[in-house]
Amino acid sequence: MSVLGFLGPCGTHSEEAAIYTNALFGNKWVLKAYRNIYDVLVAVHKGQIDCCLVPVENSIEGSVRITLDTLAHDVDLKVNMELVWKVHNQLMAKGKVKKITKLISHPQALAQCRGYINKNYPEAELIEVSSTAHAAELVASGMENAAAIASRRSAEIYKLTLLDKDIQDNCDNVTRFIFLSKREEYIGRQDPEKVMLICQMDGSKAGSLCAVLAEFAKYNINMTHIESRPNRRGLGNYMFFFEVEASPASKEHLECAIAAVKNKCFWLKDMGWFTVVKADK
Amino acid sequence: MSVLGFLGPCGTHSEEAAIYTNALFGNKWVLKAYRNIYDVLVAVHKGQIDCCLVPVENSIEGSVRITLDTLAHDVDLKVNMELVWKVHNQLMAKGKVKKITKLISHPQALAQCRGYINKNYPEAELIEVSSTAHAAELVASGMENAAAIASRRSAEIYKLTLLDKDIQDNCDNVTRFIFLSKREEYIGRQDPEKVMLICQMDGSKAGSLCAVLAEFAKYNINMTHIESRPNRRGLGNYMFFFEVEASPASKEHLECAIAAVKNKCFWLKDMGWFTVVKADK
Repeated sequence: MSVLGFLGPCGTHSEEAAIYTNALFGNKWVLKAYRNIYDVLVAVHKGQIDCCLVPVENSIEGSVRITLDTLAHDVDLKVNMELVWKVHNQLMAKGKVKKITKLISHPQALAQCRGYINKNYPEAELIEVSSTAHAAELVASGMENAAAIASRRSAEIYKLTLLDKDIQDNCDNVTRFIFLSKREEYIGRQDPEKVMLICQMDGSKAGSLCAVLAEFAKYNINMTHIESRPNRRGLGNYMFFFEVEASPASKEHLECAIAAVKNKCFWLKDMGWFTVVKADK
Repeated sequence: MSVLGFLGPCGTHSEEAAIYTNALFGNKWVLKAYRNIYDVLVAVHKGQIDCCLVPVENSIEGSVRITLDTLAHDVDLKVNMELVWKVHNQLMAKGKVKKITKLISHPQALAQCRGYINKNYPEAELIEVSSTAHAAELVASGMENAAAIASRRSAEIYKLTLLDKDIQDNCDNVTRFIFLSKREEYIGRQDPEKVMLICQMDGSKAGSLCAVLAEFAKYNINMTHIESRPNRRGLGNYMFFFEVEASPASKEHLECAIAAVKNKCFWLKDMGWFTVVKADK
């Protein structure tokens, strides 16, 4: 049976999204948890598993850097689908807690709840751990005066009491996951809706980014996301991640735009045309 | 006496940089450690302290998001100077350790040493804590089979043994700090070299970012950094951080460019003209 990798351990938002995705395709995969995003992407790249679902951006905290960096530097994979996933962060503790002095969670979840924490627990020590599920596990193991910020599924798994729900700063807290494999295809819907590109241009020339964006504008291609990342070759050297809208009608224009952009770059990595699925839950 | 705030606790790279900056100006400030970057920026904004030095970007890991987000949303401050600071990450433990199974550090330091860790300690559990100094403190307190990634100053303070030095993935591991106050001025050098701008344009229109960059290109202004951040109003809504080169000769052109860019944005926050100082250490 084919295997779909995700960021473990069980109880994370990533597991919830992987279970949802698997159900969407008739439970055709066995799910396998990995300890970090780098490992799951490399496992697909090496052919140890078939595909994976990893977070790429959150609407409050921004891009998931380890995903972007690994896609650029370490693996050769294609995006087949994007899953838009509403995140609900819950505050939970073991039984009744008199005074909460420690808040434990993944750094992104802590960041997503920054306003709530500053208002309600300004004095609490913030403890960053590798996943929201691990935070719940630590609290369940008996850490004193501690509460975890994690998913509802974590509260169930670790038998914790919900103290407050939906504590994220913005009701519109959404994480975009991407489904990746070695195959150049799109899945789940009729037509591709987006393309992801990674490239690097000559940053020493004034206007080089502008020249690239002008190509997209010229072909009337709308950009939905741009992100700059250090290319690890010294301060001031960046690579860029673009996501642009695609449709059957714009296919030809988009291909021309990508070719023109490639011409203006040192290198360009086409991450593939993919579909967008919004989770209804 | 005036007070300069920094990201504590003592022993962090931030403290090292704050001590250096203070010496640069004849030790005119008393240094005060804060528990996080949000708190130190808000303390300057509220007039509780005079100025602060906070990290804004690392050459490997990228922008420090809490700094950018707080500057955009929560405070009204001006950048007076940038300090370019070489980062040296050291691996340290308490006495002799037979087998290291836990590596503890701040998430950014762990990310800066990702390649080294994957090569030398692929099985180690990575434990993220709030600062490199706190990691050293935890290891000093007797955590078993654990090593910390922290500064040389932390090793001294917590009496730890250096196991390996300069373990960051890239020799060119540099952090940019910015010195902020409520005053619109530049310090430390004769002339300002950069300007930082934060703005938001209409992201629903194809080419709106391109139109803004075209203004800088038109006036021959070189951009040294661009960063997009979610504006916390839902997926797909971004604000942009620009840093552009400035000089006495380009002053007039740059003012025209900023005015033109402002015209094309919903809002624009001018973070000020500032100097760039490279630490010689």
